[in-house]
Amino acid sequence: MAAELTAQQLIEKHRPTLDQALETIRTRAYWSPHPEHPKAYGEQGSLDAAAGKAAFDALLGTRLDLGQPGTDGWTGGEVSPYGIELGVEYPHADAEGLLPAMRAAIPSWRDAGAEARAVTCLEILSRISARTHEFAHAVMHTSGQAFMMAFQAGGPHAQDRGMEAVAYAYVEQVRTPDAADWSKPQGKRDPLNLRKQFTPVPRGISLLVGCNTFPTWNGYPGLFASLATGNPVLVKPHPRAVLPLALTVQVAREVLAEAGFDPNLVALAAERPGEGLAKSLAVRPEIKIVDYTGSTAFGDWLETHARQAQVYTEKAGVNTVVIESTGDYKGMLSNLAFSLSLYSGQMCTTPQNLLIPRDGIGTDQGPKSYDEVVSDLAGAVGGLLGDDARANALLGALVNPDVKARLEAAAGLGEVALASREITNPDFPDATVRTPVMVKLDGAKPDAEAAYMSECFGPVSFAVAVDSAADALELLRRTVREKGAMTVGAYTSSQEFEHAMEEVCLEECAQLSLNLTGGVYVNQTAAFSDFHGSGGNPAANAALCDGAFVSNRFRVVEVRREA
Amino acid sequence: MAAELTAQQLIEKHRPTLDQALETIRTRAYWSPHPEHPKAYGEQGSLDAAAGKAAFDALLGTRLDLGQPGTDGWTGGEVSPYGIELGVEYPHADAEGLLPAMRAAIPSWRDAGAEARAVTCLEILSRISARTHEFAHAVMHTSGQAFMMAFQAGGPHAQDRGMEAVAYAYVEQVRTPDAADWSKPQGKRDPLNLRKQFTPVPRGISLLVGCNTFPTWNGYPGLFASLATGNPVLVKPHPRAVLPLALTVQVAREVLAEAGFDPNLVALAAERPGEGLAKSLAVRPEIKIVDYTGSTAFGDWLETHARQAQVYTEKAGVNTVVIESTGDYKGMLSNLAFSLSLYSGQMCTTPQNLLIPRDGIGTDQGPKSYDEVVSDLAGAVGGLLGDDARANALLGALVNPDVKARLEAAAGLGEVALASREITNPDFPDATVRTPVMVKLDGAKPDAEAAYMSECFGPVSFAVAVDSAADALELLRRTVREKGAMTVGAYTSSQEFEHAMEEVCLEECAQLSLNLTGGVYVNQTAAFSDFHGSGGNPAANAALCDGAFVSNRFRVVEVRREA
Repeated sequence: MAAELTAQQLIEKHRPTLDQALETIRTRAYWSPHPEHPKAYGEQGSLDAAAGKAAFDALLGTRLDLGQPGTDGWTGGEVSPYGIELGVEYPHADAEGLLPAMRAAIPSWRDAGAEARAVTCLEILSRISARTHEFAHAVMHTSGQAFMMAFQAGGPHAQDRGMEAVAYAYVEQVRTPDAADWSKPQGKRDPLNLRKQFTPVPRGISLLVGCNTFPTWNGYPGLFASLATGNPVLVKPHPRAVLPLALTVQVAREVLAEAGFDPNLVALAAERPGEGLAKSLAVRPEIKIVDYTGSTAFGDWLETHARQAQVYTEKAGVNTVVIESTGDYKGMLSNLAFSLSLYSGQMCTTPQNLLIPRDGIGTDQGPKSYDEVVSDLAGAVGGLLGDDARANALLGALVNPDVKARLEAAAGLGEVALASREITNPDFPDATVRTPVMVKLDGAKPDAEAAYMSECFGPVSFAVAVDSAADALELLRRTVREKGAMTVGAYTSSQEFEHAMEEVCLEECAQLSLNLTGGVYVNQTAAFSDFHGSGGNPAANAALCDGAFVSNRFRVVEVRREA
Repeated sequence: MAAELTAQQLIEKHRPTLDQALETIRTRAYWSPHPEHPKAYGEQGSLDAAAGKAAFDALLGTRLDLGQPGTDGWTGGEVSPYGIELGVEYPHADAEGLLPAMRAAIPSWRDAGAEARAVTCLEILSRISARTHEFAHAVMHTSGQAFMMAFQAGGPHAQDRGMEAVAYAYVEQVRTPDAADWSKPQGKRDPLNLRKQFTPVPRGISLLVGCNTFPTWNGYPGLFASLATGNPVLVKPHPRAVLPLALTVQVAREVLAEAGFDPNLVALAAERPGEGLAKSLAVRPEIKIVDYTGSTAFGDWLETHARQAQVYTEKAGVNTVVIESTGDYKGMLSNLAFSLSLYSGQMCTTPQNLLIPRDGIGTDQGPKSYDEVVSDLAGAVGGLLGDDARANALLGALVNPDVKARLEAAAGLGEVALASREITNPDFPDATVRTPVMVKLDGAKPDAEAAYMSECFGPVSFAVAVDSAADALELLRRTVREKGAMTVGAYTSSQEFEHAMEEVCLEECAQLSLNLTGGVYVNQTAAFSDFHGSGGNPAANAALCDGAFVSNRFRVVEVRREA
């Protein structure tokens, strides 16, 4: 098939962007090619707000035919956390029909080389970027994120993370040259001369097991890391968040075909209710890589059972913020209030345990007792979410009934410092919207430990009274070591304590944000610059994104001949 | 403790070498800083032949006190495959005493940074290089390699592989800068400014499980990859090949102490007879990395059970050479004869199955029948080893009685094309020296398959008659897929067949040497240029050396603050 898009055209179009991405992962300065502002879209073939909304509306109640081989029926049934039924039907795949077609797609993709793969991936991202408004609605109505967050985290930020993975994958593959001439001196005899060729070869089919809350943001790194290193990618979305990844597959297949590659390099595996498809796919011999975001239980299951594959997992953790002292009490309170509220705490990076010395802390506004800190923080959250319109824009909707159940149960775990409040969303009256609950716990009490040493995913935080700052450090250390953490935060104006915090985080391998009081939050990371997770504590066995995330997705085969 | 060697001194001394290594792993041209010729030693503080022999002799019958904490006794008992008892005693470690001391050594080694670690590792290699003659005897009298091979493979080639690992480890760690300033524009508002620090942190204690045949060559990559990425390394040698690694530990501890680091960053775990120390150490929570070379059974056990660790294994495989046709019949025969003979076939890279079409092959000397090819190859091996002195210099000694038993049993598996011959080593009359056996098998017969589809480690090869060249490709594919392969060779003068061989090796992920007829052999690889193994078939889950071998031995911890 003649390609409509030649490799040369794609290189001309995307190489400058790839080069900038390569430069940025080395400098880790700020950069993004994907605009965060909704109004930036609408030019150069991208959908503006109205067109994006219309495109999303047009999807509802339709069948998304991806033209995949091995389709043996249709499945669907997503209901938005905002209450509407999406009614989109997706192909259901017979693995016996689909997987061989995906494997057959490997050789020409492998032979295309690292650069052609990288720029083809960038073209996929570019087409996704043009449909950011449409994706924003798809992410909003599957994750329950508020629109602006769905737009930014599900759009440009997710695309950034995908591009970052492409850049890492590219640079990893070109560390070894395509060919080398090797000449070894032999004293007075002729040298030994060899011609060596080196080819990055893929592992096999890569399985992406998507999550409910961040289908694109958490999905794109693995998808693009695997695809850019030559592996076909089978996308198994969370059954409640199929649409954003199905659209992604649609775009990828379209671009691959136009570029003259087999579209079966990317395929969707939507599941029937209760099918447990991830479990059966993950252990198939054709599956050589698994990327997963979700519960610790299933992540551990994958690591234990999918032994034929490289398994990259992001699981649960217990995130801690240590409040030892601060030179900006007001800034600290407002920064933390935002972190606790954003997307109703349904981020793997949201702080859960706030460790506060029971004797209080020093601040720029004088000493504050434990009770004062807690009530001031509760007040800051209450103030931030006092206006219902702003609350809806920040909180989004609870993604599923389990979160609501945990939120309600949390109030019984201790003294409630901040009660959760029910909010009505005038646009979506069926949405479940709740403000966060904050519960006081005594860190020294064994019955409290059961609460604060478990992940309570959702809008729940624990203000844990500890005996001292040193006690906080030890509890932090134990929490990270035993439960893992995606993020750690600390507030301190003591150099000595700051150093001790750093030492704990270096030793326990956790990412630390210090004294954030402005517009950067502990639960947010920026692609190309920040690492998401460390890969070195129980919360995740990989970080987004680094060399380790890409280097074992391919191997290098050498062919050598006498020259 | 004041360092006798400052980081600055070590950087001045070794940075040019590190830079050359970094350059060479990118170009993959020939380079080595470690001379192969025994006469190159004796200057600049290195031991010449006589001094090296004297140093080795002085070790015999002594106690090697490494000054390790947790020493609870002494163990030893190595007997050289050449018959002499080494009589060296090594410290036996109580893990409860030793492991905490090793962990305590981490912070200052971590804080020293990637460059200081790299040049300290290069100083260790440099001191080992100066004692190459001494190490050569230690390797010879534990592995059974002939002196020249023990010298080269156990000395400069092993040191090259260690340095290669240091180079990969260094470059992987400096991909992320130590610090970055991040400034995100906010339209008309002030930009968001963060100062970010990035620190490579080690995983924990790394365990090296050494092998009998190549204690240094197979041990150094993992040892130096882990040490250079900040991990303490506990060296558990094969009980029959302790001395070369014990000397390595001795040198490492000496250099670390002189450079102001804790010598417990490298320690020896010699075991008592029957202790099974690797098994108990590998699953301890302190052990976060395991490097292993040896049997498939124990490699699989480690991968299954040492789940708390990153496990890098080189296991058994079945190496194939496909003989389809050749434009240099004589060169092919002599090249293969050498490959089959070197170190009595006791290399993980030695060819085992020679696949030859039963209708014969085309050569520059006219068509040759299957029988002719086999008998000519048998003749070439016989000729190469006809002189006992040369035979001893090539074959070395059988490393253990199991190899001898397999050799003897192989003669009963089919028609013997080349019988094994017993050779006396005049210097070491107790050495077991045998020439290789070659057995004819019919690839189509099921009872033959049991033989050629298993690794028969030692001086045994099978001349397998196949129905056609296409049949050979299919058998090769199946062998690599099911049994793994460290090496694949092929002889062909057909472009079409060559392409088909390459395709099979790319698809099954095996390293291919084509038409070797001169002084390069399929079983030899050169550090900085050739990959040893692919990491993509069952013979090994890692290759020496690439990004994947080093990138997950450390993680990067980020600390960010508002700027």
